[in-house]
Formats: sequence, C-alpha cells, structure tokens
Amino acid sequence: MSKTALIVGAGSGLSAALARALSKDGYSCTLAARNVDKLAALCKETGATSIACDVGRREDVERLFAQLDATGAPSVVIYNPSARARGPLVELDPAKVAQTLAITAFGGFLVGQAAAKRMLEAKSGTIVFTGASASVKGYANSAAFAMGKFALRGLAQSMARELQPQGIHVAHVVIDGGISSATRPVPADKPDSLLAPEAIAESYMHLIKQSRSAWSWEIEVRPWVERF
Amino acid sequence: MSKTALIVGAGSGLSAALARALSKDGYSCTLAARNVDKLAALCKETGATSIACDVGRREDVERLFAQLDATGAPSVVIYNPSARARGPLVELDPAKVAQTLAITAFGGFLVGQAAAKRMLEAKSGTIVFTGASASVKGYANSAAFAMGKFALRGLAQSMARELQPQGIHVAHVVIDGGISSATRPVPADKPDSLLAPEAIAESYMHLIKQSRSAWSWEIEVRPWVERF
Amino acid sequence: MSKTALIVGAGSGLSAALARALSKDGYSCTLAARNVDKLAALCKETGATSIACDVGRREDVERLFAQLDATGAPSVVIYNPSARARGPLVELDPAKVAQTLAITAFGGFLVGQAAAKRMLEAKSGTIVFTGASASVKGYANSAAFAMGKFALRGLAQSMARELQPQGIHVAHVVIDGGISSATRPVPADKPDSLLAPEAIAESYMHLIKQSRSAWSWEIEVRPWVERF
Amino acid sequence: MSKTALIVGAGSGLSAALARALSKDGYSCTLAARNVDKLAALCKETGATSIACDVGRREDVERLFAQLDATGAPSVVIYNPSARARGPLVELDPAKVAQTLAITAFGGFLVGQAAAKRMLEAKSGTIVFTGASASVKGYANSAAFAMGKFALRGLAQSMARELQPQGIHVAHVVIDGGISSATRPVPADKPDSLLAPEAIAESYMHLIKQSRSAWSWEIEVRPWVERF
Repeated sequence: MSKTALIVGAGSGLSAALARALSKDGYSCTLAARNVDKLAALCKETGATSIACDVGRREDVERLFAQLDATGAPSVVIYNPSARARGPLVELDPAKVAQTLAITAFGGFLVGQAAAKRMLEAKSGTIVFTGASASVKGYANSAAFAMGKFALRGLAQSMARELQPQGIHVAHVVIDGGISSATRPVPADKPDSLLAPEAIAESYMHLIKQSRSAWSWEIEVRPWVERF
Repeated sequence: MSKTALIVGAGSGLSAALARALSKDGYSCTLAARNVDKLAALCKETGATSIACDVGRREDVERLFAQLDATGAPSVVIYNPSARARGPLVELDPAKVAQTLAITAFGGFLVGQAAAKRMLEAKSGTIVFTGASASVKGYANSAAFAMGKFALRGLAQSMARELQPQGIHVAHVVIDGGISSATRPVPADKPDSLLAPEAIAESYMHLIKQSRSAWSWEIEVRPWVERF
Repeated sequence: MSKTALIVGAGSGLSAALARALSKDGYSCTLAARNVDKLAALCKETGATSIACDVGRREDVERLFAQLDATGAPSVVIYNPSARARGPLVELDPAKVAQTLAITAFGGFLVGQAAAKRMLEAKSGTIVFTGASASVKGYANSAAFAMGKFALRGLAQSMARELQPQGIHVAHVVIDGGISSATRPVPADKPDSLLAPEAIAESYMHLIKQSRSAWSWEIEVRPWVERF
Repeated sequence: MSKTALIVGAGSGLSAALARALSKDGYSCTLAARNVDKLAALCKETGATSIACDVGRREDVERLFAQLDATGAPSVVIYNPSARARGPLVELDPAKVAQTLAITAFGGFLVGQAAAKRMLEAKSGTIVFTGASASVKGYANSAAFAMGKFALRGLAQSMARELQPQGIHVAHVVIDGGISSATRPVPADKPDSLLAPEAIAESYMHLIKQSRSAWSWEIEVRPWVERF
C-alpha cells in the first residue's frame, strides 16, 4: 500500500496538525470536509488535496472513495467529524439529535466501511476514530453527544475485533479535555492546560507506526492538569 | 404519581415477564409495539392495554404519550426495542445500519425524552433501558448492533447523571447471555444456562423499588455458567 | 445448605442493616469482628452470634470457620472490612499501606477462600464483597485505599468467573457515596443524600435471592443526588 | 532533571528492550533486580549499571534509591516485577498469595513513592507501571494475580490523578498477550502473534516523550491476532 492518508472532517486544529505530521512523515494526504474553501492554505502548505464531502450523505462518502480509487486507496484513514445538540434532555430537538448521530457515528460507519473494503485487499492499513470524554462518560445535558460518541466507540471496538486479525489496525483516541486553537489560546498562567493539536497528532502517529505485534486499540490523552 | 407502567417493545418473553411482574405488583400496564395483535393474550392475562407504535417514527412516539396523557403519565417506562444488522462490516447494508441505530438508540431517546418530560413534573419516576452484552463490548461482525447498544448506554448514563438529581431514576440493564423462550428452550443437561425472563424481570423490579438513597444506574445479569 | 449467614467486619451501620435484613429473611447470622463487645445489642436484637476475628490474621480466619463448621457452614458470606491510609502519596507510611492491603484485600481472600471451600461441597452459596467508589476509580491522596479496593474487586471478579459455573454466586457491591449513621446524619435540607444502610442492604438481599439463570456479579449504589 | 532511567524488575525480554530503547535515546540506565548476575551482558551492551534489590523488602528499595541519589535521581522509573500464585482459588497457598501482592503491588507502591519523592522536587519525571490482561479482567484460577495487578492499576491511577498536576507523568501499560522470547519464540505460521519486547518498548518510549499537554495515563498493547 502506498503512503497515502485520508483525513475526514478536516479544518480544525487537530486535522491540520495531523495533515502536517503525516506529510512530514512522507504521506500524501487528502482532506475531506463539507467546505473545502477554508483548506486552501493547508493544502498549499502540506501538498494535500481537498475533496468536498458531507459525511452524513452516503453518496458523498461513496464519491469521495471513488475519487481516491483513481489514484490509489489510502493506507491511513482518520475520522474526526462530530456534531452536537446541547442542552437539557427535554429541550433537545429530535431532528438535531438525529443529525448528531448521523455525523458523529453513522458517518464514521460509512467512512470506516469504505476504508475497510479497500484495506482488506491489501490486508493492511490503519483507521483511527477521534473520540472525546463523552465517548466513555455520559455527561448531564449532553445526551445526544454521548449517544454519538458512545456509538462511534462501539463501532471502533467492533471493527478492531473484526479487522485486526485481517491486518487492519483500528484505533480510537479519547481526547479528554479542550484543544487549544487561535480562538481558544492556552491561558498564560496555566501552561499546557489545553491539548496542543500537535501533541495529540503525535499519539496518532504513534498508533499509525505501531508494530502489529503490539497494537493499541484505544489511547486517551489529556492535559497534565486535567481533572479525571 | 400513579402506579402505571409503559413497556415499549413488548412482545418478547422479557416484556411479557415484565408485564406480569408489574401487574402483580399493582401496576396498570400499557404495552407498546409495532404489531399489537400478538399482545391480546398477554393484555387479557395482565389487564394491560396495548398501543401500536413504531419507535422509529417520531410521530408514533408522540401519539403514544399523548394517549397516555389522557389517563395519566406512566411512573415506570421500560425501553426494550432493538434491531440488528448482522455480518462482516464490509457486507453491511448502510440502510440497515441506519435502521439499527434508529430503533435501538434513537427510539430510546424519543421515548426517554417523552417520559422525562412527564416525570419531571412529578419529580419522580423510573426509566429503564434494556441493554445487551453488545452494550459494553463491540463484537466482531456486529458493528451495527454495537453502535446502537453503545449509544443507548450513553443515553442512559447521560440521563442518569442529569435526571437523577431531579428525582427520576434512570437505569440500564446489561443482559449478558441468551434468553430462554418457547422457541429457545433451556437445554435439559444445562439447567438455567439461558436467562429466564422472569428472573431478569426480578432485577428490573428491584431497580424500580430501590430507595433513592441507594440507586443503581446499571445492573448486569447473566446465567451462572456464562463465560464472561 | 442451611440458611446461615456470616457477616465479616460487623459493627458499622451497613453490617447491622445486613444482619437485620438477613435475620428477617430467616437466616441465622454470625457476626465476626475484631471487637465483639460492641455487637451485644445487635446480637440480642437479631439472634445473631458473634465471634472475634482479626481478618488480617490467617489463624483467626481459620478459627472462625472451624467454629462455624461445628454448626454448619454458612450459605451466605459477606466481607466488609477495610482499612485506610490517607494522605499524599509521599507522606504515606508504608506499614500502614501494607495494613490497608492486608485488611481490605488479603483478608477478603482468606475469608473468600474459606467460604468457597465449604460452599463447593454444597455447590451453592453466595459470597458478597463490599466495595467503594475507590474500587473503580483511583482518587488522588488515596493510593493505599485504591490499591486495597481495586485488589478486592479483582479477587471478586476472578472468583465470580471461577466459582459461578460451580454454583457459587460471587458478587461485588460498589458503594458510591457516604453512608448515613448516628454520627453522620442525613442533612435535613438534603433528604436521602447519604446512603441509608437499610437501602444498601436491600440490594445485597436482591443479589442473594437472584436466580442462578440471571446473576449479577456487580451492583453500584449511590444516592440520587450523588455526582458520578 | 538529567536523562536517567531506573528499570525495576530487570532481566526479562521487556526490561532488556526498555534498557536498549532508553540507552539509544540517551538515557543512563540503572537496572534493579533481585539477581543482578544475569544482567552483566545487558549492562555491557547498554552501558547500564545494575543494583541488587528485592522489591518486596522495604529496606532494599530505600537502599536502591539512596544509591541513585548519589549520582542523581532518575527522571524515568519503570516498574515491572510481578509474582503469581496459580491455580483454583481453594488450592492457593495464602503465603504465596501474600507474596504475589507484595511483589506485584506493594513493591510498586514502595518504588513509586520513592520515585515520586525525588521527582516532586524537579516537578517532572515519568513513572510507568507494567500491567497485564489481569489488570483489567479477573480470570478464573488466577485470583492472586488479579488481586496484585488490579491493585497496581489502582495505585497507578491514583498516582496519576495526584501527581500529574504536579508535573509527574504516571502511566500504566496493559500488556494483553504473551511476550515472545528465546524460550517462547513466535510460531513460524503465526507471524507477530506474540508481543515483541521491542514493539512494547516503543509504546513506553512514546509515553515518556509525550508532551504534558496530551498525556496518556494508560495504553493497552496486544498482538493483531489476539482475541480481546
């Protein structure tokens, strides 16, 4: 398999850090996002290609992988997208809860299935799903997000059990804490109290590089000062 | 609150055992199922009423609770429905995976939300979600079911954290093993090797009766001989 | 097997509630504690017998069961004792950490092993270990207690996997919150905000009565208002 | 803090791989083991120093760290030792169970406490505890090992919560599967079906190198074909 990577849900700080880390390691990257306009600078910087894709739409995901097939299936696929419907349970709009499930979990299935179909031919590859604190703990006023992230973790665990013996590494990363960004800078008096996207990306790269004799299916990352 | 119970996803052996246990304990029961024809005998036996409801349809769930409102909101609501799309990940039909999520998890949200709206007025009530081994372990060749059951557990845990301090007991039961039934009798040489519906129902009744000073949010039940 | 119960670590509110609940259900109870003087009133009330036993001493545990053998081995054994060494890790006295492990975990092994030897002959019986929040979460400034309670849970889980298929029910109860008592009354403005010993005892009785077709190996109990 | 590492419980394949990986990365290593004779070749190869230490003896652990203090406290400490008492619960020798707890868990406390005392002065350092499948699952016929490994995990989690906000990274590695060695070679027809010590060591090195903005407290590693 060629050294090619697909990052789905690109745009945020983590995706950009992943694109940079993968590019630096020699991967040709494709960035998929609903809106690719904002990806121009990152593509230029990393040599990545962008493809528009709404992961909630099955035909979009099919078209995405069909495009990739033309040049060669990715050996690394990372799934980041999530949506949230916040608020007290009784005030949640069912349509938004459905949307949260669709983007956070069902899109992960669509992308994971399409990726696995290609990787099974090569009997190798790595699929990483991005989780959150909500993947392992259902918080109050966050029922929809808990549903979506628990579901994505169930998908990742089932895929790991099924696909790892066929050579495909499936992993789930629990990001337990806030991620720093331009709009959410790290407080000066609390250094490293938010997760640096580059630091998270290093754990993704570690997962991608692990020898198949010692694969991790899940890694949690959190800032040193995070209460857990 | 009156002693009234709603069992959603009625029909299977567990639902019938729950209806019998609740009736015996003085509850007026309503049984909701897609097809209520098969419930006639059970209704006659337990004095329960049946209402047709497809939990995958939002309007059905709304109609169900509107009907109940006429006579008084239920103080106990149990959510049983689930759907499965079985098989290797790459062979799963996305439409069936979506259906699995809709019935197993999203319907749980619709019913749980409608129940909570009523119970919050009384500041009391019990909502129990029926889980499975797949709620806590993602098995190979069972990605869709893992997604649905993990999501339902995330919902239950989030609801417990949010609603318990408001007086509503939310619980999740992990049924870890096969349930015996007329079509799946217990092997004569392996007594009690399948879960008896009546035995499971006893743990539901225990949850319903727990004092609020010592609530359980989750209980696992499995046959004595089950490997776990 | 006769309806006889042994409660180890008797004296606290929970043990007394267990003795009352078991007696009420027809069990002849033996209460084992380091200091049995304080148990006189409870013995009189419940008809229980008391035996002095320091669970940290192997010979004491052997003598305890030898005494019980004279009248018939217990069909229910409950293990409550724990010790704590509190404080920042670096300030903990190693001797007290060793003592915490000895009372909280090793004593559980000694009692569990002695109980299992008797119960295996009858191929029935119930052994319940009392856990705490610290059984599943290692808190800061509580390393010793975390070690002891994690160890006891590991013991209970291993015993459940090994002994349940031989007819012995092994369970672990996670008590997540403070227990009310004469010296720690429930705040008047926060009703039921501490676990009532009688309420906890009901979950123990439920475990003891469960049909072997649907055994729980672990139950968590916490007050409705407890943050978790 | 200088780049110095202490590996406790040295001798096995994993310890040797850790010594090599740390040395290659510029660490001066000290290897502590009950019997240091067998470490001569490894010391020569990696430039490591060896110190005899029985972790079950408090005075040995104190002497070990006193010796290290002379040249500078270690910035990385890895705790590997474990002991096992195998067999059906009722056949276990209590003395061996006590020994299992002493080596597997209490020794971890002694070493972790001594390491933390030094690292807190520098407000930095990494302590890694080596776990096993038994750290998170209590298997039948393995009660003693489950007790020891659960206890060690409780210690590690408590230390992580307490010490990480003080700058010390505490991690726990769950090694889920057999480790290959000279006496336990990988079957020729099942490549990578046992964990390669060098592959495990890479995950330790990743933990050691993690930025404090994104620390993992636990990583599981298992061979691609391992059932889990």
